Amino acid sequence: MTQPDFSDIEKARDRVRDFVHRTPVLTCRSIDEMTGVSVFFKCENFQKAGAFKIRGACNAVFSLSEEAARRGVATHSSGNHAAALALAARWRSVPAYVVMPENAPQIKKAAVAGYGASIFFCKPTLEAREETLARVVASTGAAFVHPYNDVRVIAGQGTAAAELCEDAPELDAVIAPVGGGGLVSGTAIAVNALSPRTTVIGAEPEQADDACRSLAAGEILPAGNPHTIADGLRTSLGTLTFAVIRERVKQIMTVSETGIVEAMRMVWERMKIIIEPSAAVPLAVLLSRRVELKRVGVILSGGNLDLDRLPWQP
Amino acid sequence: MTQPDFSDIEKARDRVRDFVHRTPVLTCRSIDEMTGVSVFFKCENFQKAGAFKIRGACNAVFSLSEEAARRGVATHSSGNHAAALALAARWRSVPAYVVMPENAPQIKKAAVAGYGASIFFCKPTLEAREETLARVVASTGAAFVHPYNDVRVIAGQGTAAAELCEDAPELDAVIAPVGGGGLVSGTAIAVNALSPRTTVIGAEPEQADDACRSLAAGEILPAGNPHTIADGLRTSLGTLTFAVIRERVKQIMTVSETGIVEAMRMVWERMKIIIEPSAAVPLAVLLSRRVELKRVGVILSGGNLDLDRLPWQP
Repeated sequence: MTQPDFSDIEKARDRVRDFVHRTPVLTCRSIDEMTGVSVFFKCENFQKAGAFKIRGACNAVFSLSEEAARRGVATHSSGNHAAALALAARWRSVPAYVVMPENAPQIKKAAVAGYGASIFFCKPTLEAREETLARVVASTGAAFVHPYNDVRVIAGQGTAAAELCEDAPELDAVIAPVGGGGLVSGTAIAVNALSPRTTVIGAEPEQADDACRSLAAGEILPAGNPHTIADGLRTSLGTLTFAVIRERVKQIMTVSETGIVEAMRMVWERMKIIIEPSAAVPLAVLLSRRVELKRVGVILSGGNLDLDRLPWQP
Repeated sequence: MTQPDFSDIEKARDRVRDFVHRTPVLTCRSIDEMTGVSVFFKCENFQKAGAFKIRGACNAVFSLSEEAARRGVATHSSGNHAAALALAARWRSVPAYVVMPENAPQIKKAAVAGYGASIFFCKPTLEAREETLARVVASTGAAFVHPYNDVRVIAGQGTAAAELCEDAPELDAVIAPVGGGGLVSGTAIAVNALSPRTTVIGAEPEQADDACRSLAAGEILPAGNPHTIADGLRTSLGTLTFAVIRERVKQIMTVSETGIVEAMRMVWERMKIIIEPSAAVPLAVLLSRRVELKRVGVILSGGNLDLDRLPWQP
C-alpha cells in the first residue's frame, strides 16, 4: 500500500465536512502554568460519537463507490472505531457489520447497536476475530475498514490536526497519542504540510510502549497484551502507520500510569471537560517537564469512558 | 434596599468584562431529542473559579471606592461564593476574609486559601457564623458582600443571562436554578429587559423547595436544613431576591433527586462537560416534559464537585 499524503487529507476534509464537528481548540491558564507551556487542546472528546475516530470512518465510508457502499462496511473492534463506523454507515444508509469479542464492555456493545450496526460476537482471541470477520465479509461482500492501517482512515484522522494548525498557528510541536498509529500518522502528514517547522511527537503509555520499541528496532514489534488504563492505546502498529511514523514523527515519548491518571484528572478539574484516559497521555508528557517548547498543540482524542468507576477511584 | 434594575447589569458588564470569561453557549442534538426542546446551555461551569459566582463577586469588589476597597471584603460561605470573592479581591489586590464552618469540605477550604483569602473557622451554626462575621468586619473594616442578597451581586449574576440573550436570541424561556435566588433574580432582570417575550423559570430540588413555597405563601419561608444533592441550592431566599422573583419570575418548578442525578449524568455523557449537581436542576425540569416550549436557555451554573465520589455511585 502506498502511504497517504496531504492531498488525501484535503479530499477527506471535503468528504467529512458536512458530517463531523469542527471541534473547538481550548486553552487553560492554570495548566499552562503547571506545564510551563502554552497548550492548545484540540477537543475531539466533543466530536460526534465522542472521539476522533468518526473522521477516519466517515472518510472511508464516503470514499466507497455507490455499488461497493451498498454492500456495506465491516470491521473488528471493541472500541471507538466500531461505533464510529456504525454511525458513518448510517449516515450513508448502508449496512455496518461489527465483529466484537463477547466480553466487550456493555457500554461499547450498546453504542454500536445503538447506531444500527449488526454485531457478530466471537471469542476474545485474535484468531477468532479474524476468522469471524472473514466469514462476515465473504457472506455480505462488505468492505473491510481497518481501524487504523488504512489510507482512508489515516487521511480522515489527519483532518483534526489540519483544523488545529489553522486555529492555533505557529506551534512548536503537536503531540498525539499512539495506539495503532492512525491518529499520529494523519496528524504528522497534516502538520508537515501545513506547518513545516512544527514537530510531531507521539505519546504512549510506558506499559504499552510498542511504538517506541518498534521505532528503535526498525521493525514492528507486537504490543503483546499490555496492561494500561489507556484502553485505546493497547494495539500494535500496522505496516502503513509504522512507515508514516518512521518517516514523519520526530519522537515517541512514554509516560507512567500515574502520570496518565494525574493528567486526566487535571483536565477534568481545571477545564471541566471529560476526556478518556488515552486522551490524557500527551498532557502527561508535558507535565513530566521533559520537553523544552513554548507553544504545543495536543489532540484530546476522545471522551468515552465508564462513568461508574473513575481511574482515581479505588 | 431598592431592587437592582437593568442599568445595574449594564454597569456590571463594564466592570467585569476584563476579568470574567464570556462563556460559550453549547447545544447538544441528543439532549434536544430527549427533551423535545432546542436547548441553549450557557456554560458557567467554564467560568473562572468554576461557577457564575465570580460575576457577582467581581462586580461587588470593583463597585467599592478606593478607600473602602483597601479595607477588604468579607463574607460567610462554604461554597462557590467564598472562592469567587477571594479571587475577585486578589484581582483588585485587596484583602478577603472568609468565615467558614469548620466542617466545610477540604476542597472548598483549599480553593479559598489558594486564592489568598484569610479564613476564619466557626462552629457550623447560623449564630456562630454571623457572630464570627460581625467580629471580622468590626476588627478589619471590611465590606460585607452577601452571597446573594446584595444589589451588586444580583446585577453581576445577571450578566450571564445578558450574554445568553445575545448569543441565543428569540428564546421562549430561560431556566436558572434557585438557591438564595441571586442567579435567577439577575437572570430575570436581564431577560425582561433584553427579550421581553421570554419567560424566566426557576428550578429547584423538591427536597429544597423553599422558593416555591415562599412564592405560594407570599412570604419568605426558611429552607430548613434540606437534604439534596444540589448543595448550592440549600439556602433560603433573601428579602431582595424574594422581591425580584415575585415580580419577575413566572414560575418555580421542582424536580426529584433522581431527576437531578439523571440530568447531570446526561450532560456528562452526551456533552462531555462537567457540571455540578445544582447546575443539572434546570435540565431535569426539561427532561420531566412538563413544559411546552420550543427554544429554551439553561444556565449551567457551575462545575465544582468532589470527583472522588460521583452522585450515581453507591
